[in-house]
Amino acid sequence: MAETDQAPPPSDQLAAMNLTDTVEKHAFSDRVLIRSIVGRPDGGAGLAGQRVRAGGWVKTGREQGKGTFAFLELNDGSCPANLQVIVDTGLAVLSKLVATGTCVVVDGILKVPPEGTRQKIELRVEKVVSVGEVDPAKYPIPKTKLTLEFLRDHLHLRARTNTIAAIARIRNALAFATHSFFQEHNFLYVHTPILTTSDCEGAGEMFQVTTLISESEKLEKELIKNPPPSEVDMEAARQVVSERGEAVKQLKAAKASKSEITASVAELNKAKENLSKLEERSKLKPGIPKKDGKIDYTQDFFARQAFLTVSGQLQVETYACAVSNVYTFGPTFRAEHSHTSRHLAEFWMVEPEIAFADLQDDMNCAEAYVKYMCNWLLDKCLDDMQFMAKSYDKGCIDRLRMVASIPFVRISYTEAVELLEEAVKGGKKFENEVKWGIDLASEHERYLTEVKFQKPVIVYNYPKGIKAFYMRLNDDLKTVAAMDVLVPKVGELIGGSQREERYEVIRERILEVGLPLEPYEWYLDLRRYGTVKHCGFGLGFERMILFATGIENIRDVIPFPRYPGRADL
Amino acid sequence: MAETDQAPPPSDQLAAMNLTDTVEKHAFSDRVLIRSIVGRPDGGAGLAGQRVRAGGWVKTGREQGKGTFAFLELNDGSCPANLQVIVDTGLAVLSKLVATGTCVVVDGILKVPPEGTRQKIELRVEKVVSVGEVDPAKYPIPKTKLTLEFLRDHLHLRARTNTIAAIARIRNALAFATHSFFQEHNFLYVHTPILTTSDCEGAGEMFQVTTLISESEKLEKELIKNPPPSEVDMEAARQVVSERGEAVKQLKAAKASKSEITASVAELNKAKENLSKLEERSKLKPGIPKKDGKIDYTQDFFARQAFLTVSGQLQVETYACAVSNVYTFGPTFRAEHSHTSRHLAEFWMVEPEIAFADLQDDMNCAEAYVKYMCNWLLDKCLDDMQFMAKSYDKGCIDRLRMVASIPFVRISYTEAVELLEEAVKGGKKFENEVKWGIDLASEHERYLTEVKFQKPVIVYNYPKGIKAFYMRLNDDLKTVAAMDVLVPKVGELIGGSQREERYEVIRERILEVGLPLEPYEWYLDLRRYGTVKHCGFGLGFERMILFATGIENIRDVIPFPRYPGRADL
Repeated sequence: MAETDQAPPPSDQLAAMNLTDTVEKHAFSDRVLIRSIVGRPDGGAGLAGQRVRAGGWVKTGREQGKGTFAFLELNDGSCPANLQVIVDTGLAVLSKLVATGTCVVVDGILKVPPEGTRQKIELRVEKVVSVGEVDPAKYPIPKTKLTLEFLRDHLHLRARTNTIAAIARIRNALAFATHSFFQEHNFLYVHTPILTTSDCEGAGEMFQVTTLISESEKLEKELIKNPPPSEVDMEAARQVVSERGEAVKQLKAAKASKSEITASVAELNKAKENLSKLEERSKLKPGIPKKDGKIDYTQDFFARQAFLTVSGQLQVETYACAVSNVYTFGPTFRAEHSHTSRHLAEFWMVEPEIAFADLQDDMNCAEAYVKYMCNWLLDKCLDDMQFMAKSYDKGCIDRLRMVASIPFVRISYTEAVELLEEAVKGGKKFENEVKWGIDLASEHERYLTEVKFQKPVIVYNYPKGIKAFYMRLNDDLKTVAAMDVLVPKVGELIGGSQREERYEVIRERILEVGLPLEPYEWYLDLRRYGTVKHCGFGLGFERMILFATGIENIRDVIPFPRYPGRADL
Repeated sequence: MAETDQAPPPSDQLAAMNLTDTVEKHAFSDRVLIRSIVGRPDGGAGLAGQRVRAGGWVKTGREQGKGTFAFLELNDGSCPANLQVIVDTGLAVLSKLVATGTCVVVDGILKVPPEGTRQKIELRVEKVVSVGEVDPAKYPIPKTKLTLEFLRDHLHLRARTNTIAAIARIRNALAFATHSFFQEHNFLYVHTPILTTSDCEGAGEMFQVTTLISESEKLEKELIKNPPPSEVDMEAARQVVSERGEAVKQLKAAKASKSEITASVAELNKAKENLSKLEERSKLKPGIPKKDGKIDYTQDFFARQAFLTVSGQLQVETYACAVSNVYTFGPTFRAEHSHTSRHLAEFWMVEPEIAFADLQDDMNCAEAYVKYMCNWLLDKCLDDMQFMAKSYDKGCIDRLRMVASIPFVRISYTEAVELLEEAVKGGKKFENEVKWGIDLASEHERYLTEVKFQKPVIVYNYPKGIKAFYMRLNDDLKTVAAMDVLVPKVGELIGGSQREERYEVIRERILEVGLPLEPYEWYLDLRRYGTVKHCGFGLGFERMILFATGIENIRDVIPFPRYPGRADL
């Protein structure tokens, strides 16, 4: 075996394990997680005397004792707290360690620091294993206080800040809480398609997905390199075919030998093939293919127009109507030119769908799910929540506790409108007029949940005129079995409904709202064959993170925000 | 409060709870899951005497005893087994219950069936609560044996078949196993973007995402309804401006009153505004906006060309280089015209990325993850696996057991090529030539894992010429620290590498493979500032399901397959 083929040298994992028998080991790295030290209830004090390898990025560093040693606050993203590290001169060029953002891996002994310091433990370095340097003059996100807006221009580095890292951990926790909740309740996770040829509600701006432009550009380049045949080329090729045809005819007439005729026919066929290739190429036209003045989508990748999904609901219903309890959790898209702090072009949605269940069950599920997420954060992310409370929204932990413990208020849309009208009589000013039939505006929703009740509110039974065709018509024929969950801080967090399961009724509703039946035939089939009472809802995942953290702008709670004019990386 | 506003009637949930105190209750429905009866170790026998409400779809039904009662095999998707249900005539029109696909909800008493029957328990119905009928003459997927290919033309109903439902449960289990594995090992789930302006490897056909076509169509319609101003209109408007300007001038010269002049200036301004609106509209041209002969992407939604992601790796590295251990799990896209049983245009990938870790750690993580998924299925999905073994691939359970328990073979690429060359000498025929430097073809990979070793094989240290620029260059300068995990049945399941963390080396590699530096500046920043040793891999999620189930065509293991010419629903 050649020298080059030796396996990479064994890691120091085993050695590290022996040294750190009471520190939680990292399964796939030779260092320990900083959380396994400073994240312990004793702050790590009980680990004094242990030898560990730690790695992370310097949050702050400074040389002390006239350059005889350096203090480093090291963070590896595993928790908000840093590990204090002390490096003596001689182990490294200290000035190369102290810049914010420097990556260091060190071996050392955990020691209890002198009385009066904040830390419960610190790492006394014995060996500097590696350093990823930073030139502080060039580093785009130095230690100085940076605004969230500034960080949006540095998406690739912003996770190194305390805030974005804390949001990443909270987002991760909420995602896993979501899966845990639905799995515990016997829901199947279904991957609904991102590329779709259906439009969920016949509304909403959709992104188009196509290969027509790139194919036409490819063709254009090809035609420049290798121009299509001219009429002269074509005529010449036709001429050759006709000559060869004539030659065959003459040989046959002259009763020539079989082999002579065969050879001549072969020549003719070659000429015909060449002509047909030229004819094929002569049809190639640069530009997007058109037919009858319109773009010819039969030539697009999916042989028809395709879009990015705005919701997986209709598709996931096909699974609910087969395996009962399902949910989706995936990206959805809106091509709306909204420049607000509440809208993204790409965002994640959680959409459960429950068969054999009605609007009451839907509300019960939504309330249980939101409470579950709140409890999860309180249980598993309290340190990050404390950071958010300290830095952004001092009420955020109390809000989680309140929502986790208090039953949600449930009122009908009509009651909600009555309450809003009462408020107006009492002097409350709204920008949008309040009357039965309107879609509640954000200001109305926030009044109900933040002022009137000061807790989560579920509003149900909305006028059918402002809701989608698939929501179940109530017996009053005026309202549909829809429900929205409103919470303090963000307003609408969840929208859901019982679905119309009666074939005749939903067919009528599709026509009533002016949609064509044909694209919905598959959806109607669910009602034609073995129809079932069912319901579901959608939760905007980023809204939930805004609610939990108190962060104001939705662009800061998704790792790579997409909005008009921006799709960095 | 108006009559229409009463809350929907309370569900029968409480009543059902009282009746079924030892059957697992469904939290958000008034029926119990069939799995909670027939999925028990005793097959449900211990529940005899319990009253329950059950709902599901009829798999098979038949009238018996000269129409005095009907047997229904009821399935609700919660497990592969059915609940046997007996309905006496008088409770319902029996002929309306027995068609395959009918949805029924029934209340009844669980009873132990007579000796000699397969079932351990059956439900004796007391009340038929609701029926969703099926006309068997029209039902697209009647009971007769249907091929998977046929079912692909009925995506919206195919989850009602035993096979697609079992695959849905296995897929769900593997997805949750994935999250559980990475969460247990302190990885953060990061949502990388679907819309991207970066191309992961400078290769691969990408889908373009745009609003230019829909915007241009919208404009076209608008211009037909409301044509742009003609030159005559424009000239008239210019004339008005000039006349009004003249009028103002004259009034001023005549020292007219202030109010007269003000009024005249207002008239002039109105005329100017009208002209500028017309000028604006006269510039509107139908068609996709162009500049210098090329499509003007500054007018597209993101102000530049945007695509669907082919991998979240480069983006997730920004998080690994900040919070250490991360993974993505999301859809990825290839606009390749592959009509094989192994390719999809939209598929799901799992991509972990580990900081402070090398290729050995990467292999350890990949092996542990695959084993974890195998054990998970054996633990939690054995009934579905037994169904797959019976119906599709009798070796699938043994394969899971083998992979879960046996250490993966690890050989270098050079060793792999030597073994293949030996095989050729021994008479083995490959379609693709074997020699050092080639990319291993599927036939080579399958020979290694299925014939030579008959277990999973990790091949590492590939020639740099066949691998991506971001893979870490080995000291031999000929190979990179890449690794592929090969498993029986599917061949390559995982591809990964240690990433090049050295700024100068990766910069050189980008140039060497002929890519421009500019789009990768953000990626280079990760190496410029606080660089860290790191590694990661990608697992094709559908490949894992093929491996687990033995299903042959990838279009059957994703709920809504997308491939050239097809994107149903």
